[in-house]
Parts: sequence; C-alpha cells; structure tokens
Amino acid sequence: MTRRVHNFCAGPCTLPLQVLEEVQQEFIDFHGAGMSLIEMSHRSKEYDAVHTEAMQLAGEVFEAPQDFEVLFIQGGATLQFAMVPMNLLEAGQPAGYVNSGAWAKGAIRDAGFYGDIYTAWDGADADYMRMPASREIEIRDNTRYLHVTSNETIGGIRITEWPDVGVPLVADMSSEYMARSIPWDKFDLVYGGIQKNLGPAGMAVVFVRKSALAHSNRALANYLRYDVHADKQSLFNTPPMFAIYLLGKMLRWMRDKGGLAAVEQEAAGKAAMLYEVIDTSGGFYNCPVAEANRSHMNVVFRLPSEDLEARFLSEAAGHDLVNLKGHRSVGGCRASIYNAMPSESVATLADFMRRFASDHG
Amino acid sequence: MTRRVHNFCAGPCTLPLQVLEEVQQEFIDFHGAGMSLIEMSHRSKEYDAVHTEAMQLAGEVFEAPQDFEVLFIQGGATLQFAMVPMNLLEAGQPAGYVNSGAWAKGAIRDAGFYGDIYTAWDGADADYMRMPASREIEIRDNTRYLHVTSNETIGGIRITEWPDVGVPLVADMSSEYMARSIPWDKFDLVYGGIQKNLGPAGMAVVFVRKSALAHSNRALANYLRYDVHADKQSLFNTPPMFAIYLLGKMLRWMRDKGGLAAVEQEAAGKAAMLYEVIDTSGGFYNCPVAEANRSHMNVVFRLPSEDLEARFLSEAAGHDLVNLKGHRSVGGCRASIYNAMPSESVATLADFMRRFASDHG
Repeated sequence: MTRRVHNFCAGPCTLPLQVLEEVQQEFIDFHGAGMSLIEMSHRSKEYDAVHTEAMQLAGEVFEAPQDFEVLFIQGGATLQFAMVPMNLLEAGQPAGYVNSGAWAKGAIRDAGFYGDIYTAWDGADADYMRMPASREIEIRDNTRYLHVTSNETIGGIRITEWPDVGVPLVADMSSEYMARSIPWDKFDLVYGGIQKNLGPAGMAVVFVRKSALAHSNRALANYLRYDVHADKQSLFNTPPMFAIYLLGKMLRWMRDKGGLAAVEQEAAGKAAMLYEVIDTSGGFYNCPVAEANRSHMNVVFRLPSEDLEARFLSEAAGHDLVNLKGHRSVGGCRASIYNAMPSESVATLADFMRRFASDHG
Repeated sequence: MTRRVHNFCAGPCTLPLQVLEEVQQEFIDFHGAGMSLIEMSHRSKEYDAVHTEAMQLAGEVFEAPQDFEVLFIQGGATLQFAMVPMNLLEAGQPAGYVNSGAWAKGAIRDAGFYGDIYTAWDGADADYMRMPASREIEIRDNTRYLHVTSNETIGGIRITEWPDVGVPLVADMSSEYMARSIPWDKFDLVYGGIQKNLGPAGMAVVFVRKSALAHSNRALANYLRYDVHADKQSLFNTPPMFAIYLLGKMLRWMRDKGGLAAVEQEAAGKAAMLYEVIDTSGGFYNCPVAEANRSHMNVVFRLPSEDLEARFLSEAAGHDLVNLKGHRSVGGCRASIYNAMPSESVATLADFMRRFASDHG
C-alpha cells in the first residue's frame, strides 16, 4: 500500500493518486512506443495526440467559448505578469489593476514596465482582507482592461462578484484555476500557473479572446507573442511535454468527476467544512477574511497564540496532516484544498481541528 | 523486459534507461515523504535538496568557474534569444551574431527587438555547411558580445575553433550542451535547452558571468531578469521541479560515467562510427557538411535519391532504428546521437547503414 499523507500545500500540491499511478505505469514505455513520453519528438504522432487532447479538454472543462484561444506557455503566471501588458496594450494605453494582495502587487510591478498601469482599487486600507465592489473600482478613460487576481493564495480571499466596470477583465486565476465557472463575456484573458489545481509546476495556461490577438504587438520576441503561440497551437518551440501530459490527465479526471459544476460544488463543500469548524470554535480559531470573500481554495486561520499555532502544526503533522503553515509573510495557518484534495482529507483535518480546540481551548 | 527502440530523435530524445527506472520507482512516494516530488512545495526541504544538488552538479559537470552563476529558466533556448540582449545590452550598444543556420537566425531575429544587432558573419554563401574562422568575423566598435550557435541541430555543423575576436562570446549550445568542454575565459554567457543532452523539455540552463550581472537591466519584468533569478537561486517563482529533478539525475549519471572528458570522448567515437560508414560508402551516403565542422551530435546525410531515403527510413524503423528523418526544412536523413545514446545503438545503426548500402548501392 502506497503511503500517502494529507498534503495541504499551497502549491505545488496534492494530485489524484489515480493520475500518479497512470503516469508511473506508462512512464518508461509510453503506449508501446518503446520510449518514454519525455523522450519523444514533440512532432511525433503519439505526442501530438496528447497535446491536442489537453488543449481541447482545457477549453471543454473550463467551458470556454469558441472565440477563445488556449495557449500553453512556460514561465508560470509570473511571466504572464509581463506578457499580458506587452501583448494587449498599445503605446500609452492605460490598464487598471485591482491591488488585492501579494500576487496582485507582483502583477502591478511587472506590468509597469510595459504600459500605463494604475491601481484601480487598493486593498491596503482593508489590510487585503476583502475584495472590492464594482462601484469602488475607479476606471480611467481609454482603459484597455481591468486586471484582477481572482484568488489571493496568501491572503485567502477571492472575488465573489466579478467587477462590472465597462472594460474587459483580465484575471490571474492561478490558485483557483478551473475550480469555478466564470462569465466569459466579461473577459478578454484568463491565465494561471497549472501547479495548483491542474498539474505539476512548469507551465501557465492562457485563455485569450481571439479578437484581442488581432492587435498583438509585433515588436516582441517570438516567445513573448500570444499570436505566435496561437498560430502554432503552442508548438512554436518545444513545449513542456510532461506538464502538458499531466494537465491532460488532470482534465480528464475532472471531466469524469462531472466537470466544472461538480468540482465547484465540491470545493464549496470542502471549504465550508473548515470554515464551520472555525466559526463554531468559540473564537479559538479565527479567520481574518471578510466572510463574503473567503477563499474556497486557501483557508487561512489563526489560533490564540503563536505557541499554540506551532503546537497545532506539529500535532497535525503527527497525524499526517502536513503543510498547514501559513505563508511566511503573514504567519498563522493555511489549509490549501485544491481540486485534487479528497473530501475525506478535509474531513480528517476538520475532525483534528475540533479535537485540538477542545483539548487546548 | 522493457521494450526500447533506438531513438535517434533530434530532441527531445533518448535518456538513460537507468534514469527512467529511478524516476518511475520513486514517482509516487518520493523518498518516503508520502507524496510525489511533483506534489511538493518548492520550498520543502526534500525539494530543496534536489534543487541545490542539480545546480551544484551543473557547474561541476560542465566545469564552470566559480565566477559563473547557474540559472534555471523556463521557456527553452527560445526565450533566451530575447533575454540575452535584454539583460546584456545597454541602450544603443551593438552585439554581433554569427549566422550559421536555422537556430542562429531565430536568435538574430528575436534579438533585433532589444538591441543594435548585426550579422558578424553570414553562412548563407556557404549554404550553412560550415562555421567561420575568426578572421572572417567582422566585429564593430563597442560590440558587447559575439553570439554563436555552437552546434546547428538542423544543418549538422558545429564550431570546432571558438572565435577569437576580442569581445566576449555568448553561445547557444542547446544541441551539444555539456557534450564538450569549453574555454570559459572566452565566454560571458552560455545557454541551452535541456531537452537534448540533459533531460526533458521545459527548461533552459544559463551560465552567466557574475560580473555581467552587475550591469543587469533593471527596467524589465522580474521573470526576464537574470539578476533576479541569480539572487533567488532560481527559486524566484515556482521552478519546473520535475525537469530540474531529471536534470540532476542526468548530471549524476554523467559524473558517474567519468564527467565531461569521458562524455566528449564517447561523443567523438560515436560520431566517427557513422561518418566512417558515410565516407567509405563509395558515395552511396553523402554528408554535405565541411569536414572540420561536422557535428558530433547531429549526423546529417543524404542517399542517392529521395526514394532510397524513404526506403532507408522505413527499413531502419523495421529494425527499431527510429526518428532518422532529416528536418523537414532540409530533407535527407539525420542521426542525433546525444549523450544518452548508447554506443551499442550507434553501432547497430552503422551496421544497418553498411548492409543497406551494400544491398542498394
């Protein structure tokens, strides 16, 4: 029997055992080809089938309309912080950014080198513990897009109502990618690293509206151009084949579970288990996030003291409940419960939290 | 018994069976952690050990001096076409490029957006069948670096004598990466994708002289800055962990074989086996490349007719000698014999080539 811990890591993170077992089983001799998938030409018919299926399933599972291109690009969401403004903004054209926390700040900083970037709403006053309402967001004239970070992995907050501000949205959805359905008509572009909900580290998936590509910036190196990746079906250069292969398996696994609706419902249920423990703990656990914006992926909470937090983490690890430490910049505890996190593991954590509160409360 | 073909693919390409078996064996439960390596935090102590070892071995195996940084960056050599000039050139500063074929052209095209780029030698007149002598290379005043593509994967040519032109060299070594020792004092930067000699697709390794980082361009997004990757030991954002893990295993395998000297000698021996068949075939096989610049990694050859080439490829495949077709842009045949290609497989191909020539010559 394979030893498996309950891995609440914020990413990279737990993947379905079934997917790992499939990869292991076919790792050396892929489908009888006499070689591993990672030894194959990216132009081979075997790999092409893997690539094409992953691309198609990405659109299908995320319910993206036909007028969006799906792109596989290396460099994670971080490189997209630069590629989004490089590709979408014309010289001097402004773009607004919602500053909702650590990841939004990264996007704002990098975009500043490639466009007229302004903060359309600043969460600093609320200590980054909530998301804005549409009326709080200030949009300047001629704004090309509003950028949002739909779920802040460190702060544990998520957008509940998508902004309705009269300009297209661009969203970094890394830490809740394909964990919720979105109103596609509001968006020109959605991106995210796959290393949380969708596979291993080493790639971002970008969904971009085809009409937005028509204005692509041609004065960029090939790798930085969305239109180049789109024209070549993300085979302009050698793609990260292993990551794409895993992505395809994750998407098939999601589809077989019932698709986005099933995943979204399960996510809400898993998150509710933990928030309920927190809210009924008589103040032993405390979640600082505005209730309406509580993340379904990253449940952050504090205990009465740092000593108790250290003890909590250590006792949890003793029960194979691991990686529950909050991000070093904010402290406390965090349970990341992405798509592949089994409900049973969340229930095990909830039970442990109740016991711990009753023992130490 | 695992079925293994002789895979002469130009990249991604054959890897040592021993490495693949190790990966398979530890894939689901990495060193007893109760999770796969691809499910781990990139800040975990388990992954940190993998990362640090790969970085250290890269310098050790390639015999890089201490004044070079090793960087792991996503996007392949293709993204480096842009990052090299972005990071190394000051505004208006020229850089010379040797145009030696398909990959050099890609580097020249992309660099053109980020600097004053000129062709210092053009192989077009020689139909890209040879590399230049130093005296043929024209260097302009104030040139920051001369860029060379040390081995052209498609053309099958390699630099034998490194240019001595009074400015630092920058080399794309992708298709002969860590397959030969280099005179480090001539270089400011060496880069290459790892998907040929060193692992799966999805990453480049960059060696950059520390003093060159001091002048890093600060007006770039973080992901595009060498100094940012260097400061964070290539952990600025989530790295492509699986690729780095495989790279580490490949480097250990190379070290255990006897390091760069042993690998370089074996490469010369493997290449000589095939060139000897070609040269003693009485003109049945023809290698168009200047003898002094014949690649040790990509052996290109033609047969008397395209019909015979098609037959050669088909009969070879019948003997499990696969992926011998030349690049679609040039036709003919190509045997790519990277570091992990066993001598026995090359000998098997050489035997087959002799038999085929004698049957059809």
